[in-house]
Amino acid sequence: MSAAPAFPAALPGAANETTADLRPRFGPDGLIAAIAVDAATGAVLMLAHMNAEALRRTLDSGEVWYWSRSRQALWRKGETSGHTQHLVEMRVDCDQDAVLLRVAQTGPACHTAAQSCFYRVWRDGKLAFLD
Amino acid sequence: MSAAPAFPAALPGAANETTADLRPRFGPDGLIAAIAVDAATGAVLMLAHMNAEALRRTLDSGEVWYWSRSRQALWRKGETSGHTQHLVEMRVDCDQDAVLLRVAQTGPACHTAAQSCFYRVWRDGKLAFLD
Repeated sequence: MSAAPAFPAALPGAANETTADLRPRFGPDGLIAAIAVDAATGAVLMLAHMNAEALRRTLDSGEVWYWSRSRQALWRKGETSGHTQHLVEMRVDCDQDAVLLRVAQTGPACHTAAQSCFYRVWRDGKLAFLD
Repeated sequence: MSAAPAFPAALPGAANETTADLRPRFGPDGLIAAIAVDAATGAVLMLAHMNAEALRRTLDSGEVWYWSRSRQALWRKGETSGHTQHLVEMRVDCDQDAVLLRVAQTGPACHTAAQSCFYRVWRDGKLAFLD
């Protein structure tokens, strides 16, 4: 990992819940969870992860970057597929170990070509495929 | 952790994306991510984690259980606050390392008494509190 751009450190306990500072609480792996939802429809598109550099690049550029745990690499969403995510709004959760990204999604969000990665639903003991 | 109820093992690579079997891909920490959304409004309420036992209890009971990473304990949502989550529908993502829970939420989802844990939005370099 390259040198992480600085964010102020997470505050202990409940203090991180009431601050107006962005103080991401990166885990032992250096990551926070990122939920991407379609800004137009509110549909949940995918769950991925960000390290400090991915978060910084996303905020600076308005294009969404993630950290790929499987490839151990920074990754601009859509850099190979063209299925980019433009950041419309970012929210953080109470303890700041997760962010909610409202995005303008170009093309399908999932690498399987599904609009959302959540294309299967649990029904009667099996997974059913949604349209 | 008590003995984890069995789920079939995750399949290698893309095979986990096309199976109709629930084959959660638990991480090295034994967890998957769980996004809870309000079944009525679609609003994202919170992000938490599940181990195999939390997932099994959720599917068996219809009440949502999580694994608390901070307390290292199973946790039925609302067991102390009364702010329970009744499972309406569960979806899984492509590689099955995350689930999307559509829930009937009783009371606020966040322990801070906010309806959603995502009550702050990034604006002009600071976090603004939403109503």
